[in-house]
Amino acid sequence: MNQELKNLIRSVPDFPKKGIDFKDITTLLKDKNGLNDVLEELCNLAKNKGITKVVGIESRGFILGGALAVKLGAGFVPVRKPGKLPAAKISESYILEYGTDEIEIHKDAILPGDNVLLHDDLLATGGTMQAACKLVEKLGARIVQVSFLIELSFLNGREKLQGYDVKSLINYDNE
Amino acid sequence: MNQELKNLIRSVPDFPKKGIDFKDITTLLKDKNGLNDVLEELCNLAKNKGITKVVGIESRGFILGGALAVKLGAGFVPVRKPGKLPAAKISESYILEYGTDEIEIHKDAILPGDNVLLHDDLLATGGTMQAACKLVEKLGARIVQVSFLIELSFLNGREKLQGYDVKSLINYDNE
Repeated sequence: MNQELKNLIRSVPDFPKKGIDFKDITTLLKDKNGLNDVLEELCNLAKNKGITKVVGIESRGFILGGALAVKLGAGFVPVRKPGKLPAAKISESYILEYGTDEIEIHKDAILPGDNVLLHDDLLATGGTMQAACKLVEKLGARIVQVSFLIELSFLNGREKLQGYDVKSLINYDNE
Repeated sequence: MNQELKNLIRSVPDFPKKGIDFKDITTLLKDKNGLNDVLEELCNLAKNKGITKVVGIESRGFILGGALAVKLGAGFVPVRKPGKLPAAKISESYILEYGTDEIEIHKDAILPGDNVLLHDDLLATGGTMQAACKLVEKLGARIVQVSFLIELSFLNGREKLQGYDVKSLINYDNE
Protein backbone atom coordinates (compact mmCIF):
# COMPACT_ATOMS: atom_id res chain seq x y z
CA MET A 1 0.00 0.00 0.00
CA ASN A 2 1.09 3.49 -0.79
CA GLN A 3 0.96 5.11 2.63
CA GLU A 4 3.01 8.13 1.50
CA LEU A 5 0.58 8.81 -1.33
CA LYS A 6 -2.37 8.21 1.00
CA ASN A 7 -1.00 10.83 3.37
CA LEU A 8 -1.31 13.40 0.56
CA ILE A 9 -5.06 12.79 0.19
CA ARG A 10 -7.40 14.96 2.22
CA SER A 11 -10.55 13.55 3.78
CA VAL A 12 -13.40 16.08 3.83
CA PRO A 13 -16.27 14.99 6.09
CA ASP A 14 -19.89 15.42 4.97
CA PHE A 15 -19.13 16.31 1.32
CA PRO A 16 -21.03 16.41 -0.96
CA LYS A 17 -23.60 15.41 1.66
CA LYS A 18 -23.82 14.39 5.30
CA GLY A 19 -22.25 11.04 6.10
CA ILE A 20 -19.89 10.93 3.13
CA ASP A 21 -16.18 11.22 3.83
CA PHE A 22 -14.94 12.71 0.55
CA LYS A 23 -11.45 11.76 -0.65
CA ASP A 24 -9.96 14.98 -2.01
CA ILE A 25 -7.13 14.30 -4.46
CA THR A 26 -6.33 17.99 -5.07
CA THR A 27 -3.87 17.98 -2.17
CA LEU A 28 -1.96 15.18 -3.89
CA LEU A 29 -2.14 16.73 -7.38
CA LYS A 30 -0.76 20.08 -6.23
CA ASP A 31 2.30 18.34 -4.75
CA LYS A 32 4.80 18.01 -7.60
CA ASN A 33 6.37 14.88 -6.16
CA GLY A 34 3.04 13.27 -5.37
CA LEU A 35 1.77 14.04 -8.87
CA ASN A 36 4.90 12.66 -10.50
CA ASP A 37 4.84 9.52 -8.33
CA VAL A 38 1.22 8.58 -9.07
CA LEU A 39 1.76 9.03 -12.79
CA GLU A 40 4.90 6.87 -12.67
CA GLU A 41 3.08 4.14 -10.76
CA LEU A 42 0.03 4.15 -13.02
CA CYS A 43 2.31 4.08 -16.04
CA ASN A 44 4.35 1.18 -14.67
CA LEU A 45 1.15 -0.86 -14.27
CA ALA A 46 0.21 -0.31 -17.92
CA LYS A 47 3.48 -0.21 -19.84
CA ASN A 48 4.61 -2.81 -22.38
CA LYS A 49 1.01 -3.91 -22.96
CA GLY A 50 0.64 -2.28 -26.39
CA ILE A 51 -1.90 0.27 -25.24
CA THR A 52 -2.98 2.50 -28.14
CA LYS A 53 -5.71 4.60 -26.46
CA VAL A 54 -6.23 5.90 -22.96
CA VAL A 55 -9.87 6.68 -22.14
CA GLY A 56 -10.38 9.22 -19.34
CA ILE A 57 -13.73 9.75 -17.58
CA GLU A 58 -15.00 13.34 -17.19
CA SER A 59 -13.79 15.23 -15.44
CA ARG A 60 -11.24 14.23 -12.80
CA GLY A 61 -10.24 11.25 -14.95
CA PHE A 62 -8.95 13.76 -17.52
CA ILE A 63 -6.19 15.05 -15.23
CA LEU A 64 -4.07 11.90 -15.08
CA GLY A 65 -5.65 10.33 -18.18
CA GLY A 66 -4.09 12.83 -20.57
CA ALA A 67 -0.69 12.52 -18.90
CA LEU A 68 -0.92 8.71 -18.96
CA ALA A 69 -1.69 8.73 -22.69
CA VAL A 70 1.37 10.85 -23.47
CA LYS A 71 3.63 8.77 -21.26
CA LEU A 72 2.40 5.49 -22.79
CA GLY A 73 2.71 6.85 -26.34
CA ALA A 74 -1.05 6.45 -26.87
CA GLY A 75 -3.88 8.72 -27.95
CA PHE A 76 -6.34 10.20 -25.45
CA VAL A 77 -10.12 9.78 -25.65
CA PRO A 78 -12.60 11.54 -23.36
CA VAL A 79 -15.80 9.89 -22.10
CA ARG A 80 -18.12 12.79 -21.35
CA LYS A 81 -21.42 13.74 -19.78
CA PRO A 82 -24.39 14.11 -22.16
CA GLY A 83 -24.36 16.97 -24.66
CA LYS A 84 -20.66 17.80 -24.47
CA LEU A 85 -19.28 15.84 -27.44
CA PRO A 86 -20.02 17.55 -30.77
CA ALA A 87 -19.80 14.72 -33.36
CA ALA A 88 -21.50 11.32 -33.91
CA LYS A 89 -21.51 9.39 -30.63
CA ILE A 90 -22.94 6.47 -28.64
CA SER A 91 -24.36 6.62 -25.11
CA GLU A 92 -24.67 4.30 -22.13
CA SER A 93 -26.86 4.73 -19.05
CA TYR A 94 -26.00 3.60 -15.55
CA ILE A 95 -27.79 3.51 -12.23
CA LEU A 96 -27.10 5.97 -9.43
CA GLU A 97 -28.30 5.88 -5.83
CA TYR A 98 -31.32 7.89 -6.97
CA GLY A 99 -32.16 7.73 -10.68
CA THR A 100 -29.83 7.18 -13.63
CA ASP A 101 -27.06 9.03 -15.45
CA GLU A 102 -25.49 8.75 -18.86
CA ILE A 103 -22.07 9.00 -20.50
CA GLU A 104 -21.03 9.33 -24.13
CA ILE A 105 -18.10 8.62 -26.46
CA HIS A 106 -17.44 9.65 -30.06
CA LYS A 107 -18.08 6.79 -32.49
CA ASP A 108 -14.78 7.43 -34.29
CA ALA A 109 -12.73 7.79 -31.09
CA ILE A 110 -11.76 4.14 -30.89
CA LEU A 111 -11.15 1.54 -33.59
CA PRO A 112 -11.66 -2.25 -33.41
CA GLY A 113 -7.88 -2.83 -33.33
CA ASP A 114 -7.26 -0.53 -30.37
CA ASN A 115 -5.89 -1.76 -27.05
CA VAL A 116 -7.50 0.42 -24.41
CA LEU A 117 -6.66 1.56 -20.90
CA LEU A 118 -9.59 3.17 -19.10
CA HIS A 119 -8.76 5.55 -16.26
CA ASP A 120 -10.67 7.42 -13.58
CA ASP A 121 -9.60 8.94 -10.29
CA LEU A 122 -11.96 6.95 -8.04
CA LEU A 123 -13.53 3.48 -7.98
CA ALA A 124 -16.62 3.68 -5.77
CA THR A 125 -19.65 1.57 -6.76
CA GLY A 126 -18.21 1.08 -10.27
CA GLY A 127 -21.30 2.04 -12.25
CA THR A 128 -19.68 4.78 -14.31
CA MET A 129 -16.66 2.68 -15.26
CA GLN A 130 -18.85 -0.32 -16.09
CA ALA A 131 -20.79 1.91 -18.53
CA ALA A 132 -17.54 3.28 -19.97
CA CYS A 133 -16.27 -0.27 -20.58
CA LYS A 134 -19.50 -1.09 -22.43
CA LEU A 135 -18.98 1.95 -24.68
CA VAL A 136 -15.44 0.85 -25.53
CA GLU A 137 -16.55 -2.71 -26.25
CA LYS A 138 -19.43 -1.51 -28.42
CA LEU A 139 -16.77 0.13 -30.59
CA GLY A 140 -15.06 -3.25 -30.90
CA ALA A 141 -11.82 -2.53 -29.04
CA ARG A 142 -10.02 -4.67 -26.46
CA ILE A 143 -9.88 -3.47 -22.84
CA VAL A 144 -6.38 -4.14 -21.57
CA GLN A 145 -6.62 -2.48 -18.17
CA VAL A 146 -8.87 -0.33 -15.99
CA SER A 147 -6.97 1.86 -13.53
CA PHE A 148 -7.89 4.16 -10.67
CA LEU A 149 -5.95 6.40 -8.36
CA ILE A 150 -8.21 5.50 -5.40
CA GLU A 151 -10.39 2.49 -4.65
CA LEU A 152 -13.07 2.43 -1.95
CA SER A 153 -13.00 -1.36 -1.65
CA PHE A 154 -15.78 -1.44 0.95
CA LEU A 155 -18.20 -0.42 -1.83
CA ASN A 156 -17.32 -3.54 -3.88
CA GLY A 157 -17.04 -1.69 -7.19
CA ARG A 158 -14.77 -4.44 -8.57
CA GLU A 159 -17.76 -6.76 -8.74
CA LYS A 160 -19.11 -4.68 -11.64
CA LEU A 161 -15.75 -4.89 -13.43
CA GLN A 162 -15.21 -8.66 -13.37
CA GLY A 163 -13.15 -9.98 -16.26
CA TYR A 164 -11.04 -6.83 -16.52
CA ASP A 165 -7.54 -6.22 -15.17
CA VAL A 166 -8.51 -3.67 -12.49
CA LYS A 167 -5.71 -1.74 -10.76
CA SER A 168 -5.72 0.98 -8.10
CA LEU A 169 -2.92 2.73 -6.25
CA ILE A 170 -4.56 3.68 -2.97
CA ASN A 171 -7.23 1.68 -1.14
CA TYR A 172 -9.68 2.56 1.61
CA ASP A 173 -11.22 -0.61 3.04
CA ASN A 174 -13.72 1.02 5.38
CA GLU A 175 -15.71 4.21 5.78
CA MET B 1 1.37 28.50 -37.69
CA ASN B 2 0.92 24.84 -36.98
CA GLN B 3 -0.92 23.72 -40.09
CA GLU B 4 -0.30 20.04 -39.36
CA LEU B 5 -1.84 20.36 -35.93
CA LYS B 6 -4.69 22.42 -37.33
CA ASN B 7 -5.44 19.64 -39.81
CA LEU B 8 -6.09 17.33 -36.85
CA ILE B 9 -8.84 19.59 -35.48
CA ARG B 10 -12.38 18.90 -36.61
CA SER B 11 -14.83 21.73 -37.28
CA VAL B 12 -18.41 20.83 -36.34
CA PRO B 13 -20.95 23.29 -37.76
CA ASP B 14 -23.87 24.53 -35.64
CA PHE B 15 -22.61 23.11 -32.31
CA PRO B 16 -23.61 23.76 -29.56
CA LYS B 17 -26.05 26.03 -31.41
CA LYS B 18 -26.78 27.28 -34.90
CA GLY B 19 -24.12 29.56 -36.38
CA ILE B 20 -21.25 28.35 -34.20
CA ASP B 21 -18.46 26.43 -35.89
CA PHE B 22 -17.21 24.29 -33.02
CA LYS B 23 -13.50 23.41 -32.92
CA ASP B 24 -13.36 19.78 -31.80
CA ILE B 25 -9.97 18.88 -30.33
CA THR B 26 -10.85 15.22 -29.70
CA THR B 27 -9.60 14.28 -33.19
CA LEU B 28 -6.21 15.73 -32.29
CA LEU B 29 -6.08 14.22 -28.79
CA LYS B 30 -6.82 10.69 -30.04
CA ASP B 31 -3.86 10.91 -32.45
CA LYS B 32 -0.81 9.83 -30.45
CA ASN B 33 1.58 11.96 -32.51
CA GLY B 34 -0.70 15.00 -32.42
CA LEU B 35 -1.13 14.67 -28.67
CA ASN B 36 2.59 14.30 -28.10
CA ASP B 37 3.41 17.25 -30.37
CA VAL B 38 1.02 19.72 -28.72
CA LEU B 39 2.30 18.80 -25.29
CA GLU B 40 5.92 19.25 -26.44
CA GLU B 41 5.13 22.64 -27.95
CA LEU B 42 3.19 23.90 -24.92
CA CYS B 43 6.00 22.66 -22.68
CA ASN B 44 8.67 24.38 -24.77
CA LEU B 45 6.82 27.70 -24.41
CA ALA B 46 6.82 27.39 -20.62
CA LYS B 47 10.05 25.65 -19.69
CA ASN B 48 12.93 27.23 -17.77
CA LYS B 49 10.58 29.81 -16.27
CA GLY B 50 10.51 28.33 -12.78
CA ILE B 51 6.85 27.33 -12.95
CA THR B 52 5.74 25.66 -9.72
CA LYS B 53 2.00 25.19 -10.39
CA VAL B 54 -0.05 24.54 -13.50
CA VAL B 55 -3.68 25.61 -13.20
CA GLY B 56 -6.09 23.81 -15.55
CA ILE B 57 -9.64 25.02 -16.22
CA GLU B 58 -12.52 22.48 -15.99
CA SER B 59 -12.89 20.35 -17.87
CA ARG B 60 -11.02 20.26 -21.20
CA GLY B 61 -8.18 22.26 -19.63
CA PHE B 62 -7.54 19.26 -17.36
CA ILE B 63 -6.47 16.99 -20.25
CA LEU B 64 -3.26 18.80 -21.22
CA GLY B 65 -2.98 20.72 -17.93
CA GLY B 66 -2.16 17.62 -15.91
CA ALA B 67 0.35 16.42 -18.48
CA LEU B 68 1.96 19.88 -18.63
CA ALA B 69 2.37 19.95 -14.85
CA VAL B 70 4.15 16.60 -14.81
CA LYS B 71 6.41 17.54 -17.72
CA LEU B 72 7.34 20.90 -16.15
CA GLY B 73 7.96 19.32 -12.73
CA ALA B 74 5.16 21.38 -11.21
CA GLY B 75 2.03 20.61 -9.19
CA PHE B 76 -1.43 20.62 -10.79
CA VAL B 77 -4.35 22.74 -9.54
CA PRO B 78 -7.91 22.51 -10.90
CA VAL B 79 -10.16 25.54 -11.32
CA ARG B 80 -13.68 24.11 -11.17
CA LYS B 81 -17.32 24.92 -11.66
CA PRO B 82 -19.30 25.78 -8.52
CA GLY B 83 -19.92 23.09 -5.92
CA LYS B 84 -17.26 20.65 -7.08
CA LEU B 85 -14.34 21.52 -4.79
CA PRO B 86 -14.81 20.12 -1.28
CA ALA B 87 -12.58 22.32 0.93
CA ALA B 88 -12.27 26.07 1.69
CA LYS B 89 -12.31 28.03 -1.58
CA ILE B 90 -12.70 31.39 -3.27
CA SER B 91 -14.97 32.19 -6.24
CA GLU B 92 -14.99 34.59 -9.16
CA SER B 93 -17.90 35.48 -11.45
CA TYR B 94 -17.67 36.31 -15.13
CA ILE B 95 -20.06 37.46 -17.79
CA LEU B 96 -21.44 35.17 -20.48
CA GLU B 97 -23.43 36.07 -23.57
CA TYR B 98 -26.55 35.62 -21.47
CA GLY B 99 -26.11 35.88 -17.71
CA THR B 100 -23.06 35.06 -15.60
CA ASP B 101 -21.10 32.03 -14.53
CA GLU B 102 -18.69 31.29 -11.73
CA ILE B 103 -15.48 29.34 -11.11
CA GLU B 104 -13.72 28.32 -7.92
CA ILE B 105 -10.28 27.40 -6.57
CA HIS B 106 -9.18 25.93 -3.25
CA LYS B 107 -7.68 28.57 -0.95
CA ASP B 108 -4.71 26.36 -0.13
CA ALA B 109 -4.06 25.30 -3.75
CA ILE B 110 -1.61 28.09 -4.46
CA LEU B 111 0.89 29.91 -2.25
CA PRO B 112 2.16 33.50 -2.55
CA GLY B 113 5.58 32.29 -3.75
CA ASP B 114 4.19 30.17 -6.58
CA ASN B 115 4.97 30.84 -10.25
CA VAL B 116 1.84 29.87 -12.16
CA LEU B 117 1.04 28.72 -15.68
CA LEU B 118 -2.69 28.79 -16.44
CA HIS B 119 -3.91 26.51 -19.22
CA ASP B 120 -7.15 25.94 -21.10
CA ASP B 121 -7.89 24.35 -24.45
CA LEU B 122 -9.58 27.37 -26.07
CA LEU B 123 -9.29 31.16 -25.94
CA ALA B 124 -12.62 32.56 -27.15
CA THR B 125 -13.88 35.77 -25.47
CA GLY B 126 -11.44 35.29 -22.58
CA GLY B 127 -13.94 35.72 -19.73
CA THR B 128 -13.26 32.41 -18.02
CA MET B 129 -9.49 32.80 -18.14
CA GLN B 130 -9.68 36.39 -16.92
CA ALA B 131 -11.65 35.16 -13.89
CA ALA B 132 -9.16 32.33 -13.33
CA CYS B 133 -6.27 34.83 -13.37
CA LYS B 134 -8.08 36.91 -10.73
CA LEU B 135 -8.41 33.84 -8.52
CA VAL B 136 -4.69 33.08 -8.78
CA GLU B 137 -3.75 36.69 -8.04
CA LYS B 138 -6.12 36.83 -5.05
CA LEU B 139 -4.04 33.99 -3.61
CA GLY B 140 -0.94 36.15 -4.04
CA ALA B 141 0.91 34.15 -6.70
CA ARG B 142 2.69 35.36 -9.85
CA ILE B 143 1.23 34.52 -13.25
CA VAL B 144 4.11 33.57 -15.52
CA GLN B 145 2.17 32.46 -18.58
CA VAL B 146 -1.33 31.78 -19.87
CA SER B 147 -1.47 29.13 -22.60
CA PHE B 148 -4.11 27.74 -24.92
CA LEU B 149 -4.20 25.02 -27.51
CA ILE B 150 -6.51 27.08 -29.76
CA GLU B 151 -7.15 30.81 -30.08
CA LEU B 152 -10.14 32.30 -31.89
CA SER B 153 -8.40 35.62 -32.47
CA PHE B 154 -11.43 37.19 -34.19
CA LEU B 155 -13.15 37.21 -30.75
CA ASN B 156 -10.39 39.41 -29.28
CA GLY B 157 -10.07 37.40 -26.06
CA ARG B 158 -6.49 38.68 -25.59
CA GLU B 159 -7.87 42.11 -24.72
CA LYS B 160 -9.14 40.70 -21.43
CA LEU B 161 -5.71 39.18 -20.69
CA GLN B 162 -3.52 42.24 -21.17
CA GLY B 163 -0.35 42.27 -19.09
CA TYR B 164 0.03 38.48 -19.22
CA ASP B 165 2.28 36.41 -21.45
CA VAL B 166 -0.48 34.80 -23.57
CA LYS B 167 0.47 31.91 -25.88
CA SER B 168 -1.55 29.73 -28.22
CA LEU B 169 -0.54 27.01 -30.66
CA ILE B 170 -3.30 27.16 -33.27
CA ASN B 171 -5.12 30.29 -34.40
CA TYR B 172 -8.38 30.87 -36.26
CA ASP B 173 -8.61 34.47 -37.42
CA ASN B 174 -12.11 34.36 -38.83
CA GLU B 175 -15.40 32.53 -38.36
